[in-house]
Amino acid sequence: MSKSSKASTIDESHQSKWRKKLYEIIFLSDTATGRAFDLALIGMILTSIVVVSIESVSDLPQWIYTATRITEWGLTVVFTIEYVARILALRHPRHYVLSFFGIVDLLALLPTYLALFFAGSHYLIVIRGFRLLRIFRILKLFRFMGEANLLYNAIRSSMPKIIVFLITIINAAIISGTILYLIEGEASGFTSIPRSIYWAIVTMTTVGYGDISPTTPLGQTIASIIMILGYAILAVPTGIVSVELAQAQNAGRQSISCPACSKEGHDNDAQYCKSCGHALERIQGENNDNGTGI
Amino acid sequence: MSKSSKASTIDESHQSKWRKKLYEIIFLSDTATGRAFDLALIGMILTSIVVVSIESVSDLPQWIYTATRITEWGLTVVFTIEYVARILALRHPRHYVLSFFGIVDLLALLPTYLALFFAGSHYLIVIRGFRLLRIFRILKLFRFMGEANLLYNAIRSSMPKIIVFLITIINAAIISGTILYLIEGEASGFTSIPRSIYWAIVTMTTVGYGDISPTTPLGQTIASIIMILGYAILAVPTGIVSVELAQAQNAGRQSISCPACSKEGHDNDAQYCKSCGHALERIQGENNDNGTGI
Amino acid sequence: MSKSSKASTIDESHQSKWRKKLYEIIFLSDTATGRAFDLALIGMILTSIVVVSIESVSDLPQWIYTATRITEWGLTVVFTIEYVARILALRHPRHYVLSFFGIVDLLALLPTYLALFFAGSHYLIVIRGFRLLRIFRILKLFRFMGEANLLYNAIRSSMPKIIVFLITIINAAIISGTILYLIEGEASGFTSIPRSIYWAIVTMTTVGYGDISPTTPLGQTIASIIMILGYAILAVPTGIVSVELAQAQNAGRQSISCPACSKEGHDNDAQYCKSCGHALERIQGENNDNGTGI
Amino acid sequence: MSKSSKASTIDESHQSKWRKKLYEIIFLSDTATGRAFDLALIGMILTSIVVVSIESVSDLPQWIYTATRITEWGLTVVFTIEYVARILALRHPRHYVLSFFGIVDLLALLPTYLALFFAGSHYLIVIRGFRLLRIFRILKLFRFMGEANLLYNAIRSSMPKIIVFLITIINAAIISGTILYLIEGEASGFTSIPRSIYWAIVTMTTVGYGDISPTTPLGQTIASIIMILGYAILAVPTGIVSVELAQAQNAGRQSISCPACSKEGHDNDAQYCKSCGHALERIQGENNDNGTGI
Repeated sequence: MSKSSKASTIDESHQSKWRKKLYEIIFLSDTATGRAFDLALIGMILTSIVVVSIESVSDLPQWIYTATRITEWGLTVVFTIEYVARILALRHPRHYVLSFFGIVDLLALLPTYLALFFAGSHYLIVIRGFRLLRIFRILKLFRFMGEANLLYNAIRSSMPKIIVFLITIINAAIISGTILYLIEGEASGFTSIPRSIYWAIVTMTTVGYGDISPTTPLGQTIASIIMILGYAILAVPTGIVSVELAQAQNAGRQSISCPACSKEGHDNDAQYCKSCGHALERIQGENNDNGTGI
Repeated sequence: MSKSSKASTIDESHQSKWRKKLYEIIFLSDTATGRAFDLALIGMILTSIVVVSIESVSDLPQWIYTATRITEWGLTVVFTIEYVARILALRHPRHYVLSFFGIVDLLALLPTYLALFFAGSHYLIVIRGFRLLRIFRILKLFRFMGEANLLYNAIRSSMPKIIVFLITIINAAIISGTILYLIEGEASGFTSIPRSIYWAIVTMTTVGYGDISPTTPLGQTIASIIMILGYAILAVPTGIVSVELAQAQNAGRQSISCPACSKEGHDNDAQYCKSCGHALERIQGENNDNGTGI
Repeated sequence: MSKSSKASTIDESHQSKWRKKLYEIIFLSDTATGRAFDLALIGMILTSIVVVSIESVSDLPQWIYTATRITEWGLTVVFTIEYVARILALRHPRHYVLSFFGIVDLLALLPTYLALFFAGSHYLIVIRGFRLLRIFRILKLFRFMGEANLLYNAIRSSMPKIIVFLITIINAAIISGTILYLIEGEASGFTSIPRSIYWAIVTMTTVGYGDISPTTPLGQTIASIIMILGYAILAVPTGIVSVELAQAQNAGRQSISCPACSKEGHDNDAQYCKSCGHALERIQGENNDNGTGI
Repeated sequence: MSKSSKASTIDESHQSKWRKKLYEIIFLSDTATGRAFDLALIGMILTSIVVVSIESVSDLPQWIYTATRITEWGLTVVFTIEYVARILALRHPRHYVLSFFGIVDLLALLPTYLALFFAGSHYLIVIRGFRLLRIFRILKLFRFMGEANLLYNAIRSSMPKIIVFLITIINAAIISGTILYLIEGEASGFTSIPRSIYWAIVTMTTVGYGDISPTTPLGQTIASIIMILGYAILAVPTGIVSVELAQAQNAGRQSISCPACSKEGHDNDAQYCKSCGHALERIQGENNDNGTGI
């Protein structure tokens, strides 16, 4: 038993080493092999999306459809192996399996298999597009991650304002859509209230397809008012994002921390900690310093 | 008389208690029942709007129209009861009846009753959309109210600028619409000056339906100039709102001054002056603080 | 002679009084009659634009055309009298006659008279739209003038940047228009390079009529790139105006002037004049103060 | 040999003088002749673009095509001479030949010659549009160069953020395009995934041609969501550029620090520290100053 236990330990240590290596390749991107793996993966995801896109085009020669079908199956097999490898590389894979990327990775495999039973379902393969979000992991290498974080923070912290704004917009679309429905009637395409609300959204976002457009003088007058007011209203999210971005960018600058209470986020011209009143120590320097002054 | 007076007092006190309870449920949203009432109300308003929208769609099976009609009448009865309850819950209901929400609540009831006499008038029910503005009351619970106020203040304080801007835009639309009317003529849809002004607004707000568009080389050249200038002009409201938002957000910051050196511009979470290190005193105030001075 | 000279003086003084009164009514808007005159004038200008717009609509009953014609002539006579009165009200009218408003006032009269000789030329009456710019004079009364000035300054000081931007846009439109012309050909509406440039401008300003749109896969791909880049480029003027507006608004705030050299434009937190180094005196106060501190 | 050497030196010196003069005319724009040369060049480039544009219009009288062909050849000969002169004017022309402008100048010559062999290739002449970028050199004379630099820097420093943004947009376009393809099908123009992605980009950039637009209720609902979210997302680049512009403009400000109290953030025209009143020392620097410090 002592022997078998020893063997088990050796085996485990061996397995652990192998798992660690696999983990490094698949989950980390700061080693040469890890980076190569990530780039290859993104290349394959892009290929698989392009392949499905081509397949949806009609009137191509038959051999193209054959080629796309083969590529699609080949890539699906590779992705299946990759998915299994990811699970094997982790000692406790449950966390990964239930994470956002774990679910996306699984969902991205299913369409091809499902297409065996349900025709057309393999188009769902474009869910692989979400896997491209991994690209942000690689971008980290090129120092873009900070920028992405900045954007993400700016958008997240402006969420409450944007929700208030969306409620206002939808309210306005419902009311103005119905008004146009009552004025215009069936002739010019305002055949029902939901369709008129769709028109109102198309107009207020300044997309303006023109598939539905008012034809009566009164309808055109009210539509003009909606456009101008709509435009003024839509200036709001731009303003929100600008202000949040400006603040997020300033936040990065305020990197000085108090030597007494290590509070951060002081203004650029602050001389005393705003939290405990201790004098701040500033270094003579550039921007992104984490130094220790004087 | 003393007896009856006593009875009356008891009755009044009893009535008062009952009214207070009703008031809490209907007008406040910080109790569990009040919140439930508000959520149920918004649910019913949304339902009633959806129902009217569905009713406007033609070519649905007959039973759907029957169902929508029944739902509409049911909700109207509930809203009528709610309106009466609101009046009863208040000791002096005149203020409510003449307020914005009082009038909207009343107007939102009428269309269904009016539809008994005038066909089609029940579409006016979408006026109930305005009742959705009550949603902002509930949002307060989730701390969105401050954000809504911020937006509201930013828009209100930029009103004068936006009015100046609107006068300029309408002026530009009138002049450029007429120029295109003179150049293009009937063939390409510029059949009258009002219609050409409508086209100018559609173009300058970048909506661009395409129901009317210039076809002559000269018309297209001038339209191009209008588009580029129009775009530059329309950058203005965005700029206005951005600046006002930034100031509204700073305004909260600027309100505290150091008691020692009277330095202003401290962060909302600052407890010591950033300039001299003296403890800041905060007043019992408007929005964000729940502190106790000193 | 002395008598006649006296008479002349009296006459002159009388005339001068009468002229002064006329001047007050016509050119100033801070008296009750002056304001009434301005409002009446703007009402008449609006009426005359509405009348010409209605006249351009075809298929109205004959009596409407008769009514509009009569109104137009009536207003033109009134405007002619007003123009003469303006000249009489001034001792040296040359300055007014050659000013922007003087020329606009004259040009606004001519179309109706010209229409006697050249059919259709009376549509030029919409040049009266420019007279509406006088509205800004009245707005001054309502404290809107400062805002208009702020906007005007922001736009003027961002002119150099906007010119650089316009050159870039036109360059981009020429190049991308030609590329699409080479790719798409006649079938999809890209019949010539100027027309393709028109398409490029319609696309890059996000107007998007859809009267011309790419149909080949390659054309659509390149059009997509143009749209996304075009959108990114068009974010620039908005950014420019925002920044200029923010600065213009700050400029107004910096109302403190140095007690030694009367230099203005100091920062809000400045304690010494940036020009001569003299200590600045600040009053304890609100925003728009011109006081003299302690 | 000494003699010949001397002759050579004289010759060289003579040649050098002549080359220097040529260099001044062609490459510098701060002399009268240099400026005239640049303006003439830009005039000729514009003419050559207009000429090619006109040539692409069909159904013009034959003499116009003859005239445009002659003008085109004339200008191409002039540009060829100019290109040779540029090379002669430089002692070491390799740098110029391989520079951006050198390559553009060469490419701009080729189309006309190529058109002798390949019909239609002379349309590539619009590559001359890039030569218009030289206009920025002239603008320097009018003090616009600083503004162009400001814009250029703002755009360059916001590049990483814009790349992150573009990846997000393209991802969103792929996913939402495919969803609409699955929902709408062939009937409404969503004939393939690539075409649907094209539609998604047209919609999210708010261009909205209307050549493809959803017709089913579900499709219109999802399209509405895409429009509103798309609009919110597209507020991001505007915000990015605004913030970068504001910082670029501030950057000029931040470069001077007080020699006494090392306070920063003085205005460009400040001569004394706003914090302690000490005289500021300015260095001989980059853009705006022509001063000589103390």
